Amino acid sequence: MATPAEGSLRRFSLAIDAMGGDHAPQSVLDGLELAAERHPQARFLLVGDEAKLTPLLATRPGAAKLCAIRHAPDAIPGDMKPTQALRQGRNSSMRLAIDAVAAGEAAGVVSAGNTGALMALAKIVIKTMPEIGRPALAAIAPSSRGDVVMLDLGANVQCDARNLVEFAIMGDAFARAVLGLPAPSIGLMNVGSEELKGDERVRQAADVLRGGSTGLNFHGFIEGHDIAAGTVDVVVMDGFTGNVALKTGEGALKLMGGLLKQVFTSSIPARLGYLLARPALERLREWMDPRRYNGAILLGLNGVVVKSHGGTDAKGFAHAVDVAMDMVTHGFTQQIRESLSRLAPETPPLVARQD
Amino acid sequence: MATPAEGSLRRFSLAIDAMGGDHAPQSVLDGLELAAERHPQARFLLVGDEAKLTPLLATRPGAAKLCAIRHAPDAIPGDMKPTQALRQGRNSSMRLAIDAVAAGEAAGVVSAGNTGALMALAKIVIKTMPEIGRPALAAIAPSSRGDVVMLDLGANVQCDARNLVEFAIMGDAFARAVLGLPAPSIGLMNVGSEELKGDERVRQAADVLRGGSTGLNFHGFIEGHDIAAGTVDVVVMDGFTGNVALKTGEGALKLMGGLLKQVFTSSIPARLGYLLARPALERLREWMDPRRYNGAILLGLNGVVVKSHGGTDAKGFAHAVDVAMDMVTHGFTQQIRESLSRLAPETPPLVARQD
Repeated sequence: MATPAEGSLRRFSLAIDAMGGDHAPQSVLDGLELAAERHPQARFLLVGDEAKLTPLLATRPGAAKLCAIRHAPDAIPGDMKPTQALRQGRNSSMRLAIDAVAAGEAAGVVSAGNTGALMALAKIVIKTMPEIGRPALAAIAPSSRGDVVMLDLGANVQCDARNLVEFAIMGDAFARAVLGLPAPSIGLMNVGSEELKGDERVRQAADVLRGGSTGLNFHGFIEGHDIAAGTVDVVVMDGFTGNVALKTGEGALKLMGGLLKQVFTSSIPARLGYLLARPALERLREWMDPRRYNGAILLGLNGVVVKSHGGTDAKGFAHAVDVAMDMVTHGFTQQIRESLSRLAPETPPLVARQD
Repeated sequence: MATPAEGSLRRFSLAIDAMGGDHAPQSVLDGLELAAERHPQARFLLVGDEAKLTPLLATRPGAAKLCAIRHAPDAIPGDMKPTQALRQGRNSSMRLAIDAVAAGEAAGVVSAGNTGALMALAKIVIKTMPEIGRPALAAIAPSSRGDVVMLDLGANVQCDARNLVEFAIMGDAFARAVLGLPAPSIGLMNVGSEELKGDERVRQAADVLRGGSTGLNFHGFIEGHDIAAGTVDVVVMDGFTGNVALKTGEGALKLMGGLLKQVFTSSIPARLGYLLARPALERLREWMDPRRYNGAILLGLNGVVVKSHGGTDAKGFAHAVDVAMDMVTHGFTQQIRESLSRLAPETPPLVARQD
């Protein structure tokens, strides 16, 4: 059952798109079986092909206890364009799962399906919170001092100062709910050369956040290296910068991983060295496991929307469910409303939008 | 001696700010001693405190053969603001080195001093090439397929499409000169979510580059992970994105390095494993050595301007001198002029500048 904070009238904690992802529906159901252990109080609306789901659920007793199946005759292919998905996907598992959130039956939705389709459908069907100008895409990344929330990661290629302030508010609520931090520190991404004080919108957003009306724990400006250093708990930036930063960081880690593999297979002593250091290296690998950081979250809608990576396995999908459950049970949406209500009403039109 | 391409009338290949950097002037002179082996044909104008430089040069025979000292009574402190440096730094080593480039005595300048001051003084004294709207800051980074040129790294927080096209042209000329590539591939940074086709300026710049009038080897759009993957030789982006991407990538590598150190000291077997794999790990460390990638280059001025990291040692400073010498001897400025002359004259005002 959902907590009272998110509406006790809802019958389901989450609607699950059972048919989305490379290994669906098996990986989805295996993920729910794992998630069931951690969330025995949850109820899931499992949306998809009933004929396929029924026997799969029968062999997964944990998930079976928490799931109700809703039949969806179609599924949205991974390469379908968002506009097509909108027109042709009305009976798809993704759409019907989203519909359940819009209708108030479930507090959120998790899908490992087509990202563009999920974002477009969720925005149009579940709709943006009235107080929020634009939803943002967030994710959790590892740092040397614990997990860090990054947003926006590409939902908005250009942002004005007001958008950035809203991202800060949403990132704060998200870090409270999912990382369990009582007062997450918020950093605003900027460039730090002495000569350049960054762009106008970033400076205006900082003025508002420094003003204190938002009640956030605002750290100030940060730079790119502060993400991995864990200088702050929440990294706020426009969607273009955020998308590039996330993928650049991932790329750098992947490069390093590939080089290490080369190192440890380059000679007999190096292979032996690997074997000796293996337990510690495995811990490192586990710590960096992308499945631990699976789940991109669309913040700012009238419901929780979590996108699991399409290629992930059961463990990765279960992590995406964890994130969604944390948001649902910790009153994420309510937290955003409270923070926004503290913003002075004259704040909205800080700068003309540029797109 | 400078090559005819860069002007045979110049008496010096490079003017060197002998007093800039944390360990100046020793590190600078040690760097020149190393560089002298690789550039026996070069001539350096060593600008700084004559009383200090004369005895240091006397003990460095390689550098002594190529250097002439020009006395500068002052040095610009690391924390001086660019505006102050402009007003009060007229007799500083940095300023007099820059003056030598502006006067046509040297083809370029290398300094490990105050970044903001160097950028501001160089722009104002050496001046932007008449064909270029705005200079850009470039650097070389490692990738899994060789070195990659990144620009702009923060000289311009907002750019229009014309700026991005010019960055592509300058990056191409730089990669030819410094990486020795006959036709470097150029990538334009964008965000790749299906829903979002990136921002207007980026798309307009891509249209011009695809048009072919620039004669560049344009690969198309790339995303953040393509930097470390080495998908292209030159990564073009606005200065805000570039600054964040560079520092995020550096931060991720540093995080991984720190974690590896922890791994290899976490147990006796892991320490032993490190000893066995050490030669291969050392090669990895050498390959990633930040000194190999030392030098931020201000492109688009009427002369070569290279900023060495302030904290670097002799080896790092010598690398910065290598980069500057490559640019001077390969007719970098001439290459840019040729590419720009191919741009259709109606190209300039693609989009109104936003700042």
